[in-house]
Amino acid sequence: MLALELASRTSEDWIEQATRHIDLVLLDHANCEKKAAGNALSLLFRYPANGRLVETLPPLAREELQHFERVHRHLQRLGIPIKPLSAAPYAGRLNQHLRRSEPEHLLDTLLVAAIIEARSHERLGLLGIHAPDPELRQFYLWLAAAEERHWQLYLDLALEQFPADQVQERLDTLLQVEAEILSSLHPEPRVHS
Amino acid sequence: MLALELASRTSEDWIEQATRHIDLVLLDHANCEKKAAGNALSLLFRYPANGRLVETLPPLAREELQHFERVHRHLQRLGIPIKPLSAAPYAGRLNQHLRRSEPEHLLDTLLVAAIIEARSHERLGLLGIHAPDPELRQFYLWLAAAEERHWQLYLDLALEQFPADQVQERLDTLLQVEAEILSSLHPEPRVHS
Repeated sequence: MLALELASRTSEDWIEQATRHIDLVLLDHANCEKKAAGNALSLLFRYPANGRLVETLPPLAREELQHFERVHRHLQRLGIPIKPLSAAPYAGRLNQHLRRSEPEHLLDTLLVAAIIEARSHERLGLLGIHAPDPELRQFYLWLAAAEERHWQLYLDLALEQFPADQVQERLDTLLQVEAEILSSLHPEPRVHS
Repeated sequence: MLALELASRTSEDWIEQATRHIDLVLLDHANCEKKAAGNALSLLFRYPANGRLVETLPPLAREELQHFERVHRHLQRLGIPIKPLSAAPYAGRLNQHLRRSEPEHLLDTLLVAAIIEARSHERLGLLGIHAPDPELRQFYLWLAAAEERHWQLYLDLALEQFPADQVQERLDTLLQVEAEILSSLHPEPRVHS
């Protein structure tokens, strides 16, 4: 079975930035969960007759929404007012690498989703260790466990619909791109800064 | 408390068309649940700092997705292949009446959502009585009960954020528009034909 190994580890710099500005990271994280649900739904709208997507993505979107609700409760508990927040350039830069024609577009979309899930999983786990608030640490450890297999789900969708060597080759390329994007810390504290 | 009464009852013609083409209506209904979830999410993206929307809409979107999954299971049970299907002009024509400037746009969006929920509720209930398949009838009666208060939820969101007389006046106008849109049967069998 194909595994997904991120091409870089998250730096100490990010951990320090994120824990020092946990309010912004928490706010951004709520947006990430919302966007994860939105992206799963977009795939459904784009590929309405793709049975595997239709079966797999709605429960995933529901889970992301539930996580959004839980993040929102922590925001309320900590008295962090919700406000619009610019996104990190991360996802936008990754999406620039989606090929436009089908079926390559579908493959790239699934792989980018898998990579974002894997990176999120790594960073939520780090918040589970380093976040300044004990309840928040507990929450992030729970969340990292809950989302453990999300990247696998997207990778499996790719492997079911594309030859394994094609998936592997494209995955390796996109993993390099992702590591490159994160090689310098974005100055604004975000989940994917 | 403000109630929402549709300005017209669904015609016998629709019941006959829908029951004769239950496969298409079921397929369209899956799309409607998906769109209902998508619209709730769009509101979250458009008004990220509106606390009431942020609290109310994610559980609603999750419920719509769960209903989508249940409709999909009936499609599979009945051997109806999923395929892309054009939407009825209904929602598009209603959306033409959304005012563009804020806060009127938000009010209109909430009221149109409430009206679509109310009409869907009426028609799903009719399918619960008239659908040709007993399991489908049972499903639709359950669904109509489950979605009983969805229109109220959107109407309450409007009433919490706008003066009651403004809500009432705009609601009456949009209810008339909606009845007018449905006054002639759309030739393609849909939930909102």
